[in-house]
Amino acid sequence: MLIVGSPVSPYVRKVVVALAMKGLDYALDPIVPFYGTEAFTRISPLRRIPVLIDGDLVLNDSTVICEYLDEAYPGAPLLPKAPADRARARWIEEYADSRLGDVVIWRLFFATIMAPRVYQREPDADAIARVREVDLPHALDWIEAQAPEADRGFLFGTMMLPDITIAAFFRNALLAGFAIDADRWPRTAAWIGRVEAEPVFAETIRVEQIIFKTSTRDRAEALRAAGVRIAAESYGGTVPQARVLTG
Amino acid sequence: MLIVGSPVSPYVRKVVVALAMKGLDYALDPIVPFYGTEAFTRISPLRRIPVLIDGDLVLNDSTVICEYLDEAYPGAPLLPKAPADRARARWIEEYADSRLGDVVIWRLFFATIMAPRVYQREPDADAIARVREVDLPHALDWIEAQAPEADRGFLFGTMMLPDITIAAFFRNALLAGFAIDADRWPRTAAWIGRVEAEPVFAETIRVEQIIFKTSTRDRAEALRAAGVRIAAESYGGTVPQARVLTG
Repeated sequence: MLIVGSPVSPYVRKVVVALAMKGLDYALDPIVPFYGTEAFTRISPLRRIPVLIDGDLVLNDSTVICEYLDEAYPGAPLLPKAPADRARARWIEEYADSRLGDVVIWRLFFATIMAPRVYQREPDADAIARVREVDLPHALDWIEAQAPEADRGFLFGTMMLPDITIAAFFRNALLAGFAIDADRWPRTAAWIGRVEAEPVFAETIRVEQIIFKTSTRDRAEALRAAGVRIAAESYGGTVPQARVLTG
Repeated sequence: MLIVGSPVSPYVRKVVVALAMKGLDYALDPIVPFYGTEAFTRISPLRRIPVLIDGDLVLNDSTVICEYLDEAYPGAPLLPKAPADRARARWIEEYADSRLGDVVIWRLFFATIMAPRVYQREPDADAIARVREVDLPHALDWIEAQAPEADRGFLFGTMMLPDITIAAFFRNALLAGFAIDADRWPRTAAWIGRVEAEPVFAETIRVEQIIFKTSTRDRAEALRAAGVRIAAESYGGTVPQARVLTG
């Protein structure tokens, strides 16, 4: 099995955690989609990450991939059992993928970290301040109402997909300098702390730190040295591609 | 059961078709989200349609709602059985929700039909021409490669969620003046024709035509007269709200 995409992406991170929860072995091609080659377009028509390649099956979209892993493989469950619980789990995940994808990834992480590196574009300080002071607090108010009670584990007993997804997005918020205020959103802060402490999630933080601290050139080697199984060939190139589809 | 949202929206239309396939009875509150009240924000934090209210359960997101209906109720299946087929079905649906949502709904239907009505904003003819001549043909090339062979039914035997979803988006393209060129995309044109001819889908076209041909003021009464069960109270107001979340 091959996973294409850098686990710094919250969408890749949740698939990497899901694979670990299923006890599945895989090779990683940790590309940033902006540098994807034309071969990448062929396996990912919207030029998004992650892509999972499992034999003949080429799958796009982190939610679709995680549902597939949950249905095709044994191991820890990624969704609860009862239809109404499954629906609530999926809706919290969708809220994160969609709303936090917009607010945390595009308007905060991309604007602060990626745009200056990839496109030599200066961050828009006013827009970033608005995200930090209005949009993210507004999303956190909604998340706080969904979060498990203080010291009460996860949303549905054990850690599952919606817990992982919410925590994954707030890693990117943190990498872009936004930490959750535990006085204002105490349940969320404690809940995300519990997710980050789970060994399968903690491992992705170790990997993320290696990626964050190495240049693109040295990254594969540094990850290999740290025990990550890196794919022999890559879907990533060295020049940013003009066409990047978002939304 | 209550469905909030106008079935002219492809996201609402697929839920309405799914409910019919499950043989479920429901009341409809056919609002346009731009006119949603503050009570609407409470049941739909991203101010999107559809919302399904099933007893205590309030669900957002058309994909989440359809997965719930498929898991909680008997009737015609909305997804195939094998994990790899289910994954492919979900990915085609996600491609439509995401890419056709952007291209067909926001950049074509919204720009052509909704913006002039709701916001008195003139359509941008150049942007709309680019959607018709570049973005939609590009998406149709990908869809043509997924479509069933000519005269060969649906993607997975009987009509299911990905068939319904693709056809729903192309209703909005048609309402905005874009018809699929059957010479250029013959499989897609024939496939969508088959979906539109299924009675549960054809019924949504009948409802769509009533909505399209009546003013907001007369709509509920016209739908009631045509046999649609309309909710007694509405989450829609008369003034467009400033805050509309997209993406």
